Amino acid sequence: MKHIDVKEIITTKDYVGKQVTVCGWVRTSRNSKSVAFVEVNDGTSLKNVQVVVDKGDSDYKEPRVGMSVKVTGTAVEGRNDTVEINAVPDGITVLGDAPTDYPLQKKGHTLEFLRTIPHLRGRTNTFNAVWRVRSVLAAAIHEYFQKNNYVYVNTPLITGSDCEGAGEMFQVTTIGYSDKYKNAEEYYADDFFGKKAGLSVSGQLEGEMGALAMGKIYTFGPSFRAENSNTPKHLAEFWHIEPEVAFAELPDVIEIAEDMLKFVIGAVLEKCPKEMEFFDQHFEEGLIERLKDLISHEFATVTYTEAIKLLKESGENFVYPVEWGVDLQTEHERYISEKVFKRAVFVTDYPKEIKSFYMKQNPDGKTVAATDCLVPGIGEIIGGSQREDDYDKLLTRMQELGLKKEDYESYLDLRKYGSARHAGFGLGFERCVMYLTGMGNIRDVLPFPRTVNNCER
Amino acid sequence: MKHIDVKEIITTKDYVGKQVTVCGWVRTSRNSKSVAFVEVNDGTSLKNVQVVVDKGDSDYKEPRVGMSVKVTGTAVEGRNDTVEINAVPDGITVLGDAPTDYPLQKKGHTLEFLRTIPHLRGRTNTFNAVWRVRSVLAAAIHEYFQKNNYVYVNTPLITGSDCEGAGEMFQVTTIGYSDKYKNAEEYYADDFFGKKAGLSVSGQLEGEMGALAMGKIYTFGPSFRAENSNTPKHLAEFWHIEPEVAFAELPDVIEIAEDMLKFVIGAVLEKCPKEMEFFDQHFEEGLIERLKDLISHEFATVTYTEAIKLLKESGENFVYPVEWGVDLQTEHERYISEKVFKRAVFVTDYPKEIKSFYMKQNPDGKTVAATDCLVPGIGEIIGGSQREDDYDKLLTRMQELGLKKEDYESYLDLRKYGSARHAGFGLGFERCVMYLTGMGNIRDVLPFPRTVNNCER
Repeated sequence: MKHIDVKEIITTKDYVGKQVTVCGWVRTSRNSKSVAFVEVNDGTSLKNVQVVVDKGDSDYKEPRVGMSVKVTGTAVEGRNDTVEINAVPDGITVLGDAPTDYPLQKKGHTLEFLRTIPHLRGRTNTFNAVWRVRSVLAAAIHEYFQKNNYVYVNTPLITGSDCEGAGEMFQVTTIGYSDKYKNAEEYYADDFFGKKAGLSVSGQLEGEMGALAMGKIYTFGPSFRAENSNTPKHLAEFWHIEPEVAFAELPDVIEIAEDMLKFVIGAVLEKCPKEMEFFDQHFEEGLIERLKDLISHEFATVTYTEAIKLLKESGENFVYPVEWGVDLQTEHERYISEKVFKRAVFVTDYPKEIKSFYMKQNPDGKTVAATDCLVPGIGEIIGGSQREDDYDKLLTRMQELGLKKEDYESYLDLRKYGSARHAGFGLGFERCVMYLTGMGNIRDVLPFPRTVNNCER
Repeated sequence: MKHIDVKEIITTKDYVGKQVTVCGWVRTSRNSKSVAFVEVNDGTSLKNVQVVVDKGDSDYKEPRVGMSVKVTGTAVEGRNDTVEINAVPDGITVLGDAPTDYPLQKKGHTLEFLRTIPHLRGRTNTFNAVWRVRSVLAAAIHEYFQKNNYVYVNTPLITGSDCEGAGEMFQVTTIGYSDKYKNAEEYYADDFFGKKAGLSVSGQLEGEMGALAMGKIYTFGPSFRAENSNTPKHLAEFWHIEPEVAFAELPDVIEIAEDMLKFVIGAVLEKCPKEMEFFDQHFEEGLIERLKDLISHEFATVTYTEAIKLLKESGENFVYPVEWGVDLQTEHERYISEKVFKRAVFVTDYPKEIKSFYMKQNPDGKTVAATDCLVPGIGEIIGGSQREDDYDKLLTRMQELGLKKEDYESYLDLRKYGSARHAGFGLGFERCVMYLTGMGNIRDVLPFPRTVNNCER
């Protein structure tokens, strides 16, 4: 069915004066004496194309909102530098009806209501804009790493090892409920993988294996967390970007993280101007300014120890008290980036007790070479670290934390055979989309969110 | 740790005459009277950089294979248009030892052996080449769809609906083995999602929801099949590309599939010449010629009915007998593309009984608007169809096949509210990597393959 994308018609003048055919859904329709106006959108553009129907003497039948139509007419220049289509009633063919119970009948639905119709909410301006920004951001992330000679690595989703705390992991099974097994051992021995298997919470450990073979790699795939938390920031299934670089130390990944964030935010601002204006108008006033400001300043760096000092001296009344050794809460992170530095900040060298076993231990014996990147407005957006590359130190730390050596043999091998300094970071894709769009609920930045008690389409 | 990628040193002449630092792993090492040769690779390049060590009177200690080293020296032009590094013994620092039990000690390991060390096999030439082609192919796929204004959509991996046959689906649970539930109902009611949940076998149905909102979309993410088949072509976890286009019919997606395949194969041939030569030499003679041939000819089209006639008249002795109504086997598919058409072929309009419920029924009442793209050498590489957009026909077909209406309410809604013709196809990413590299076993085209009884790192 040959037709032209609405985006093509309205963003170029190429078709002006020519006969064109577009397909799409009726967004609104107005009817006056001799002329009717039908706004048609095929999803390729945030903006509709306006069809101006010269009704003449004909028996014009106004199309209903939600109907899919095919329109043939002449592209003409409209007001405000737009391109419209002039058509006669016969130039509009209804392809698919939309009964009057079509849920997107009127404007101004709440986001809560739209969450109940995930299969249709993409037809609204808000979700059209969010899905496009999400797509352009994903492409920019791939572009950044590819142009810098990173290898895209797909780490496994189903895993036999539970690396970051089994409590938060989903299990994968072909058995499920059964009363035919005497005990867990028999159950799992009979399962598809012959052992207990789960869904990966992070591709980092396999990413390290990739980096210590290919030099520079990045992952971009789903991760899963069975966290029983019903908040606007948590998902059971989210997308995750995890670059890992061999022969790199903490300052190197700080440089990469800053460079990458600036590149991808710049790409979205450039490629989605209409969408960003829409968010600025409807969801977060000053959004574009805030992002432009972020990418035009050098990010700051401060140690955790210094940050704690700044917080204690601040005189602020924090909900969570501050003391060396505590994890920073969002209120602290926002204070540091918004009030103290007024820009993005890398906090470095956290106490080892609040960070993961694989992080490189600093000579002070108390801290690790970890960093969180804090941005004004939300707090932490990236977490990274140099990894412990010393076999003995890593093993000792694992034993202190009760991790079993046999579960990490291949990971330890990396420190046995040609060990090398390496470092990487993780970026939660949905958090990044929230930051770029101003959307306040993570359920609204991916099409089909999965949370406790919700895995519906 | 500032250093230069090996790829940069050897593919440009920019560094010739300058002092450079590279890091990497020792691949081989030769020692003669006054000079030693050390081949170093950091993973960024299939080709090593050769370090020529002027031993002088020093006490040169030959580095062992697998050690990680840092080399500082002068970049110089070598033989055969290469760039080498001239160094003195002090210019080589060992970063990480490699004991003599390093598994990649000698050359010429079998692929079977390498499968037992997935965390190290990326350090061989073969896997360096496969992982890079895989990465470049993935980037080319994104590039193709992005430049054509498609929106990248992440369809859900965890799903409450089981659409393509529950037998092949993994379940996702936070309970697993338990003896505390009286029956399945209680068990699943208490589970994380409050119902039985599984891992998606395809994002197509959600992809259709995306296309009927955003116009043109593509997915690129993992799919899962709990198939109990231990073959060189099956994985329990694979990556899947599924574009879907609104207002499109079967000929449109045939055009898109051909255009996409040609673009991405062309991109890999252009960006990975060394890797492709390597595969041509070591895995499939004539590979490059075959691919160039494929992308320089128009693909053929033939109906299933005509294909059956050609097969019956062929006089060939097929293992699986041919009769109208049977599914085509690989031997048939290869005969059609290799012997009859000698190029890629789209077979169209298959009997509805051997295809899925959602495919558009043709007016003949017997066939559906489906297509498989067959390529010389392997057979089917892409499967696609126009989707049934008629509410009543779709519902009738579902009922014939015993599918429950309540499981597909949102899918049916797409045919109720502004229904539109639409079509799409699916491409198994690993099958495509196999086709491009000549690798014969699907376990060798992704880093950590998951198959029956295997989910190890």
